[in-house]
Amino acid sequence: MDCGGNKIGGSDRGGPCGACKFLRRKCVKGCIFAPYFDSDQGTAHFAAVHKVFGASNASKLLMRIPAHKRLDAVVTLCYEALSRARDPVYGCVGHLFALQQQVCIYISLTPILSLIFPSSLYLYLSYLLFFLIGHQRFLCV
Amino acid sequence: MDCGGNKIGGSDRGGPCGACKFLRRKCVKGCIFAPYFDSDQGTAHFAAVHKVFGASNASKLLMRIPAHKRLDAVVTLCYEALSRARDPVYGCVGHLFALQQQVCIYISLTPILSLIFPSSLYLYLSYLLFFLIGHQRFLCV
Repeated sequence: MDCGGNKIGGSDRGGPCGACKFLRRKCVKGCIFAPYFDSDQGTAHFAAVHKVFGASNASKLLMRIPAHKRLDAVVTLCYEALSRARDPVYGCVGHLFALQQQVCIYISLTPILSLIFPSSLYLYLSYLLFFLIGHQRFLCV
Repeated sequence: MDCGGNKIGGSDRGGPCGACKFLRRKCVKGCIFAPYFDSDQGTAHFAAVHKVFGASNASKLLMRIPAHKRLDAVVTLCYEALSRARDPVYGCVGHLFALQQQVCIYISLTPILSLIFPSSLYLYLSYLLFFLIGHQRFLCV
């Protein structure tokens, strides 16, 4: 996921970046969003970021981060924003709960499986169980 | 974590709620933040939410959610905001990555441990490993 971004700023490409396109403003040289939000898919991703964090807060956050870390920050902001759009109550914290629950179920079932079954069958069952629980949990969240 | 909240609105208690105290505004009856941010610890939590999401975005989000789900939403917003304050680049997505990595390491080491050690020792080692990796990962993130 690169938030529809590219390494050329919107203004260098003759058109606004996805963020400036969404905000209907001129994309100036050095626009903080331009390297990460292109005018295609980047617009939709920026819309989510804008709705959840606000353009001003996202911009301030990126300005405080070293340039080489900004892409990671944009990716995580997009992830949080899109998760919150899908699930307004829990957002991406819902994924975190699901993953923790998955780990807890796996850990609690490990002793039972390993005592009942010989190691090879146990291994097969534990893998199967892990992926089944994981699949089910992430479908529910 | 209850975001320093209580079930009595700030205005009912004779003083502003934590959000209105932070925003230096009058806490009116029916304030959307009052049931969740008290004037003590709630102020600090609201400050983080305000910095990351903005008061207006947080308020809009809560207004769209049924009342009985708002406490959960406030808790997850506080969690995301405080995580972003601690780690501006990754925020709570850093915890998600760490947990996923922890699960991957655990899964990849399971076959080796179960083949080398008898079941009781294997169990002890796998639990130890799991919590050591978890502890280390969460200290790093």
